[in-house]
Amino acid sequence: MTSTSLETILAACQVRAERDLADLYTLIRQPSISAQNIGVRECADLFVDVLREAGFDVRLMPTPAHPIVYAEWLGAPGKPTVLIYGHYDVQPPEPLDQWLSPPFEPTVRDGKLFARGAGDNKGQIFAQIAAARACLEVAGSLPINVKFLIEGEEETGSPHLPGFITAHRDLLVADLAYTSDGPVHDDAHPQVVYGVRGMLLVELRARGASHDLHSGNWGGLVPNPAWTLVHLLATMRDADGRVTIPGFYDDVFAPTPAFLAAMARIPLDQQAALKMVGRDRLPPPAGLGYFERLMTTPTLNIAGFTSGYGGPGPKTVIPSTAMVKIDMRLVPGQSTDDIFEKFRDHVARHAPDVEVLQQGGMEPSYTPVEHPLSRIVRRAVETGFGVPPVDVPLLGGSLPDAVFTQTLGLPSFLVPYANADERNHAPNENISLDRFFAGVRTAAALFAYLAESDQPRPGTTT
Amino acid sequence: MTSTSLETILAACQVRAERDLADLYTLIRQPSISAQNIGVRECADLFVDVLREAGFDVRLMPTPAHPIVYAEWLGAPGKPTVLIYGHYDVQPPEPLDQWLSPPFEPTVRDGKLFARGAGDNKGQIFAQIAAARACLEVAGSLPINVKFLIEGEEETGSPHLPGFITAHRDLLVADLAYTSDGPVHDDAHPQVVYGVRGMLLVELRARGASHDLHSGNWGGLVPNPAWTLVHLLATMRDADGRVTIPGFYDDVFAPTPAFLAAMARIPLDQQAALKMVGRDRLPPPAGLGYFERLMTTPTLNIAGFTSGYGGPGPKTVIPSTAMVKIDMRLVPGQSTDDIFEKFRDHVARHAPDVEVLQQGGMEPSYTPVEHPLSRIVRRAVETGFGVPPVDVPLLGGSLPDAVFTQTLGLPSFLVPYANADERNHAPNENISLDRFFAGVRTAAALFAYLAESDQPRPGTTT
Repeated sequence: MTSTSLETILAACQVRAERDLADLYTLIRQPSISAQNIGVRECADLFVDVLREAGFDVRLMPTPAHPIVYAEWLGAPGKPTVLIYGHYDVQPPEPLDQWLSPPFEPTVRDGKLFARGAGDNKGQIFAQIAAARACLEVAGSLPINVKFLIEGEEETGSPHLPGFITAHRDLLVADLAYTSDGPVHDDAHPQVVYGVRGMLLVELRARGASHDLHSGNWGGLVPNPAWTLVHLLATMRDADGRVTIPGFYDDVFAPTPAFLAAMARIPLDQQAALKMVGRDRLPPPAGLGYFERLMTTPTLNIAGFTSGYGGPGPKTVIPSTAMVKIDMRLVPGQSTDDIFEKFRDHVARHAPDVEVLQQGGMEPSYTPVEHPLSRIVRRAVETGFGVPPVDVPLLGGSLPDAVFTQTLGLPSFLVPYANADERNHAPNENISLDRFFAGVRTAAALFAYLAESDQPRPGTTT
Repeated sequence: MTSTSLETILAACQVRAERDLADLYTLIRQPSISAQNIGVRECADLFVDVLREAGFDVRLMPTPAHPIVYAEWLGAPGKPTVLIYGHYDVQPPEPLDQWLSPPFEPTVRDGKLFARGAGDNKGQIFAQIAAARACLEVAGSLPINVKFLIEGEEETGSPHLPGFITAHRDLLVADLAYTSDGPVHDDAHPQVVYGVRGMLLVELRARGASHDLHSGNWGGLVPNPAWTLVHLLATMRDADGRVTIPGFYDDVFAPTPAFLAAMARIPLDQQAALKMVGRDRLPPPAGLGYFERLMTTPTLNIAGFTSGYGGPGPKTVIPSTAMVKIDMRLVPGQSTDDIFEKFRDHVARHAPDVEVLQQGGMEPSYTPVEHPLSRIVRRAVETGFGVPPVDVPLLGGSLPDAVFTQTLGLPSFLVPYANADERNHAPNENISLDRFFAGVRTAAALFAYLAESDQPRPGTTT
C-alpha cells in the first residue's frame, strides 16, 4: 500500500461517515455499565459482531468478570503489528437529571455527539475499527497486521487486565501498542502521550483506646492515634514537599535530553492553569517547573485524614482511631513493590503499631519520545488532525499502560482523540464529530505509515 | 446552734424524707430542657416557689436566655455565708426508646430514683434546699447565711453565668462556694473535689486549591492542606506528648506538698482503669503517674482531623481543605487568654496561612486542699455519708468553677452526691435514694459546722 492508497482510504472514510456514525450509535445505545453489571455482555457481543463483519478473526475471551473482545487480522506477514487497546464498558450515567438528552440515546448538538460512552471509550475505539473496516472494504486488506484488545472492566480499574495480558503474551505479540482514550488538554493541540506516572495506594490505621474518650477525664492517660499518625507522617515528607522515606528517590529515572526538550515545548499558560484551581503560584519547593512536578517528580499525597469529630462546633474527645489514605504517584524507574516495601519498613521503624494496608497500585510506564516509531505516530496524527501534535512525555495521572511497556515490552502510544470538554465520567459526556472523524483518519494513516516503515518487527516473526 | 441541734436537724430530715421526695418529684416532672427550650421557665418558677415557701428571699433574675434563680437567707449576721451553686435545666432525654421508665416520670427501682434530672442536677441541688428547709422549720433559722444560685443554662455550657457573676459580685459575696453535681468515682468513697483543669478549644483550618483535585493531574502543582496541618501540628507536640509551643508550660503551678499528698492517697487500681478502655499501660512520657497526668499536666489534644476522603477503598484526591479541632486542658496557673495568644503566635510563625478560630474556653480553678474550710467540708461529708471522703485535688475535666475562685475570689468545694452509675446525660439517669438523703445530711452538717467555725468572714461584713 502506498501513500496514494492512503488518499483513497481517507476518501472512503469520508464516504462512509454516515454509516460509521450509525454503527457507533448502535454500540452506544447498548448500556454497558461494568460497575453496575448492566448490559456489559450484550455490548461485548455487539463489538464481536462489528469486528467480525469487518473481516477480523474475533474471540470473546473470558475473565473472572467481564469478557475481553480480542480480534486480529494478520494478513500482512512481514509487516508490523499494532495492538490497539480500548474498552467497551462505560461509567454509570448518574446523576441522570443533569443530562440534557438521555444518556444512552446518541444526540448531536453543536457538532458534538452526546451520550454515555460517546468519548469514553466507544467513540474512540470505534474510530480505529472504522478505519480498519474502510481499509478492508476498499483495499481488500490491511497494510499491516492489527490486533484489537477491548476490555469490559476499565471503568472498574481493569482488575483482570494484567493477569490476562500476562497469560496471553504469545497472542499479543506486536510491534507497538496504541490507545485512544481521554480528552486532549486543549482542542488546538492534538497530543501524543508517551507514558504515565504509576500509583501506589496505601491506608494507615492507628488505634488508641477501645472507644472514644472524654478528653478531660482521660487526657494524658491514653495515646491519641491522630497524634500517632501526625508524628509518623511528619517523618515521611518535609515542609517543602520532599519525601523523606529512605530510598524513595533511589530509582527515579533520569530524563533524556529529548524528554526534557519535549517537556519544554508543551504549550502552557501557567497563571491561567493555576487560576483555574484558585491558586496564584506553585507550592514549595522553589525552582521546580510546572511539568517537572507532573512528569519527573514522584509525590506522596494525603488523600484523606479522618479521626475524631469533624462536625460543627467543639467536641472534646480523644479519638480511638485515626485513618490516613495516601496515594503516591511514581515516575519511571520506581516500582510499586519496591516503594511499598520502603514505605512499610519506614512505618515499622517509626510507628510499629500502625497498620499499613496496600489498596492497589499501578506501575509507571514510559516509551521514549525518541523511539523510532514516535515519528510515525506523530505523522499519522498530523495527517488525521491537520496539525502536528504536541508530545507529552508523561501524564501526571495513572493508566495501566505498563501492561504494554513492561509486561509485553512494547513501545506504547496514547493518542487521545476526544475534545478537551469530553466530560468523560460526567453528565453530558460527548465527543466532537470532527474529532471522531479525525481519529478515523489518524488510525488509517497510522496503518499506512507503519506499513512504509522499516522498523524491526519482532512481533511478526513467531 | 450547737452539734446537739444538728442531731435534731438530722432527725427532722429523716422524718421529712417522704415529703422531700414528693417535692423533688414535682421538680423532676417539669421538663426543663435548655438545649430545646422546653419547660425551662416553668421549672424556674417551681424552684422559686419551693425556696420562697422554705423561707428564702427569692429573685428570678433574667439573663439573655434562661433566668437564674437567686435565693438568700441572711439572718445570721456575723456568721459565714455559703454560696450554693446548682442548675435546674436538664439534658434532652433522647434516645427515648432506651429508657426503662418515662424520663420525666420519677420511678424508683432497686433503691434508685430514675428520671432525667434525678441526679443532674435537680436531685443534688434539692438536697441542699431540703436541708435548709428542715433547719428553718425545726430551728426557725439557719445557723449561717445561705445564698442559692441556680441557673438554667448549665447543659448548654453556662454561656451567661460568667457575665452574670461579674455583674453581681456584690450580691454574691460569700465565704465559700459549694456545688454538688456529677457522680463520685466509686460509691465506696465520697469525694471532696478542689478544682478542675481549664479548657481552651480551637479549630485550625487550612485551604489549598479552590476544590478537590485529581491527585495525578495536579499532584505537585498545588499545596495539600492536610500536609500543611500535619507539619504545623508536628511543631506543637513531640512524640512523647510534650507540648512544644514556646511558653506553654511557663505558668504551670507548682503543686504544694498537701496537694501531692492528697493525690497520692486517692485509691487507684491503675491496671483495672486502663483495662476498661482497652489499654495495658500509660503512653509516653515514662515516669509520669496516673494522677499527675490528670491533675498537674496540661494537654494538647487532637479531637478531630478531617480532610479529604474517609470512606471505604481508595480515592485519589488532593483535598482542598483540612480542619483540625484541638482542645487543651489547662492546669492552675495557666489562663486561656495567655495560652491562646501563645498558640496563635506559634501558628502565625509556622503556618501563617492557617486560620485559627477560638471556640470557647474555661479557666482552670483550684482551691488549696489545705484551705482552712476544707476541714469543715470534709467533716460535713463524713457526717452525711458515714465515711470520710477522699480528697481529689483536681478533676481532669473542666467546669466553670473559676467564676467562684477567680471572679469572686472564694474557696470552692465540689462534693458530688450522686452514685458512680448516675448515667447523667444518658438514658436511665438516676440517683441512689440513700445518697440523696446522705446529701441532705451533708448539707445540714455543713451549715452547722460552718457556724461553729471561726474563719474570717469577709462576706458578712459589708
